[in-house]
Amino acid sequence: MTTETFDGVAVATQANVYFDGKCVSHSITLADGTRKSVGVVLPASLTFKTGAPEIMECVAGSCEYKLAGSSEWKKSSAGDRFSVPGDSSFEIRTTEPYHYICHFG
Amino acid sequence: MTTETFDGVAVATQANVYFDGKCVSHSITLADGTRKSVGVVLPASLTFKTGAPEIMECVAGSCEYKLAGSSEWKKSSAGDRFSVPGDSSFEIRTTEPYHYICHFG
Repeated sequence: MTTETFDGVAVATQANVYFDGKCVSHSITLADGTRKSVGVVLPASLTFKTGAPEIMECVAGSCEYKLAGSSEWKKSSAGDRFSVPGDSSFEIRTTEPYHYICHFG
Repeated sequence: MTTETFDGVAVATQANVYFDGKCVSHSITLADGTRKSVGVVLPASLTFKTGAPEIMECVAGSCEYKLAGSSEWKKSSAGDRFSVPGDSSFEIRTTEPYHYICHFG
């Protein structure tokens, strides 16, 4: 089970474009002020840095990810989540579009 | 002047991925039921087909576009809009990300 829609949110019309477009997201703000983003990682191998801690929730597709300091690649599919510490990084590799919700904090 | 955010909307968490990711959008539904999408076209030359008529509103970046049956390329930048008839098509070429709102009908 994953979240197919967020209701009653504010959505930024301008996308966030990372890695020449290999990752595209839109920022949303929930009614209670919580900020998240909804995005997609296209087939690629990328390294993301975090500021705040993040929880990545897969809503469609899949990826493999490896947290900083780990040597283990793990798979994440629709309905799965993984947590990334703040001021850290993770590697991600995808062979199909990985659709996600990024929860902060 | 363009629309920086839409408030009080429902946003689909799964993106629409077109042309191997050269165009990525998220569908939104306004409180009154109106459906739109917010998206970005990465640097590319693409041809889009329309079902319903569309109004393309640029929120950041720019593109050049050419409607079916026209021989003229026109530029569209932040704040500009152009209309595309239903059951038609248009060519678009971009050298920077073209961020847009797609209004239907």
